[in-house]
Amino acid sequence: MIRTAALRALLFIVLVAFSYPALAQTDPLPSWNDGAAKTSITDFVARTTAQGNPDFVPQDQRIAVFDNDGTLWIEQPMYVQLAFILDRVRALAPQNPAWKSKQPYKAVLDGDMKALAASGEKGLVELMAATHAGMTADEFSKIVTDWIAAARHPKFNKPYTELVYQPMLEVLAYLRANGFKTFIVSGGGIEFMRPWAEKVYGIPPEQVVGSSIKTRFEMRDGRPVLMRLPQINFIDDKTGKPVGINQHIGRRPIAAFGNSDGDLEMLQWTTMSGSGARFGLIVHHTDAEREYAYDRQSHVGKLDKALDAAAINKWTVVDMKKDWKRVFAFQ
Amino acid sequence: MIRTAALRALLFIVLVAFSYPALAQTDPLPSWNDGAAKTSITDFVARTTAQGNPDFVPQDQRIAVFDNDGTLWIEQPMYVQLAFILDRVRALAPQNPAWKSKQPYKAVLDGDMKALAASGEKGLVELMAATHAGMTADEFSKIVTDWIAAARHPKFNKPYTELVYQPMLEVLAYLRANGFKTFIVSGGGIEFMRPWAEKVYGIPPEQVVGSSIKTRFEMRDGRPVLMRLPQINFIDDKTGKPVGINQHIGRRPIAAFGNSDGDLEMLQWTTMSGSGARFGLIVHHTDAEREYAYDRQSHVGKLDKALDAAAINKWTVVDMKKDWKRVFAFQ
Repeated sequence: MIRTAALRALLFIVLVAFSYPALAQTDPLPSWNDGAAKTSITDFVARTTAQGNPDFVPQDQRIAVFDNDGTLWIEQPMYVQLAFILDRVRALAPQNPAWKSKQPYKAVLDGDMKALAASGEKGLVELMAATHAGMTADEFSKIVTDWIAAARHPKFNKPYTELVYQPMLEVLAYLRANGFKTFIVSGGGIEFMRPWAEKVYGIPPEQVVGSSIKTRFEMRDGRPVLMRLPQINFIDDKTGKPVGINQHIGRRPIAAFGNSDGDLEMLQWTTMSGSGARFGLIVHHTDAEREYAYDRQSHVGKLDKALDAAAINKWTVVDMKKDWKRVFAFQ
Repeated sequence: MIRTAALRALLFIVLVAFSYPALAQTDPLPSWNDGAAKTSITDFVARTTAQGNPDFVPQDQRIAVFDNDGTLWIEQPMYVQLAFILDRVRALAPQNPAWKSKQPYKAVLDGDMKALAASGEKGLVELMAATHAGMTADEFSKIVTDWIAAARHPKFNKPYTELVYQPMLEVLAYLRANGFKTFIVSGGGIEFMRPWAEKVYGIPPEQVVGSSIKTRFEMRDGRPVLMRLPQINFIDDKTGKPVGINQHIGRRPIAAFGNSDGDLEMLQWTTMSGSGARFGLIVHHTDAEREYAYDRQSHVGKLDKALDAAAINKWTVVDMKKDWKRVFAFQ
């Protein structure tokens, strides 16, 4: 026992001596310009992780939740998952000749976005069912993996997985290095994100929360499979986000990162209930040159009520143009 | 960089030199008698964690799932959550005078288990709604916490949290020490387990999967709350278990531990699909003296089909009487 105690003490001294100066010298958020937004993040982490600080939070309670579309990766000119749906309809069209004359498929195949929009939510749900259901969970995972490797963004001509925000990747890594557990809480499909989220964000499947369709357990040729059914199970958006957080995580996050009105209730749930230090952040898309500029009037990623709430609740609002040295790693 | 590399090498050597003999000398499962059941566990862990072994599994894929009732803690003479429901009905009765003459409440208040059984699933759902809904998620958590601290088992006169199986606690700790992530996957209520599962099992709320009722996000007096609604959201039992595993964990477990037919599909999903080493285990309640003996004919924790499937699929079947030195820590 003495030998072990002595060894531990030695290791501690060695680790502190070697590691501490290294940590102190390195900027954990190199893609962030100095300013209030950056300082709000580093200040929150410093306060919640320093033993003895009145805002100290034990490690197991350091839960941080991140929206995905528009917060961690690009969501313009359309949600990536919508691009996936459209591509899948095109890919499946030869096996479904009736689609040529049937809405909403016809609109997709004709590239008629106006007719597609006219088909409304009902049309979208039908396209979802046609592209997301009718296969096993494993098969769908492979379809997503193959698609995400091949697809390119129309403006940047890059894989979507390269159109993730470098400053936010740094926040993810910085939080994790400080004992936070990072979760995605997205309106996007949970099984659409899981196949690539670990590689791209370092977030394992069990820390991804999202919308889902129902699945059914079946034996097929003597092997168990989960069949994906054309029925909505859960919509993880707006008031659904706190519900999804509670269902999957089971405790209140202390930090939430979003970019649109879909994140309002998640930010409220994180920062306005419970006690202790809390952090809310909104990514405001202000950079038409390096990415896109949009907010109150946008159809995708509308940021209106949540922007007003940010001022009232003292959430950090990131001005992408001003606060970020670069948006994407390749820039 | 050279200094860091040299330090790492030094640390590695020191750690190996000091830790390895200590680990090798200690029995990780001291409450298990030597025999096939114990060996099957240690053998599986050895094979899946030894780099170079054909059965080696990378750490992030070492997912182990555990049923709760009858696998980690006692489920006789009735599910603990049912005891909670009955106690809550009694506690709430003074505020609900009509219950005295209204079934299924009357049966509970009269202690008439026959009449209660006659009310069937419909009666139980009504009692669930009356005791589990109509309050916030935080309020329910506190009700559970208070109850579990005060309640005593009718046979052992101990808190239920002491009626957890010591040999299984050792398996949980042993797996985690070997890089496994341990999850509960129970037919019981997810919010009934989370308040105490971390303290008792070392399993954090985000690694608890269970049945649930619906919740709704609301602002109440300017603060966000999740209201618990009298509607079933998800039943995490039988074919629901693989669905719950996929929904919450998002990848296939490589080890599953259960004790009843409610765990059959979870065991199938874990061991019969996918490739690589897999492990299934069933706790067979054979010890009428130290706990209870029951299987094919039992109303609670019926073990029939899964026992037959165990032989076919080479799942380990634990004979509690023979394989466990002690059932509970206090014995």
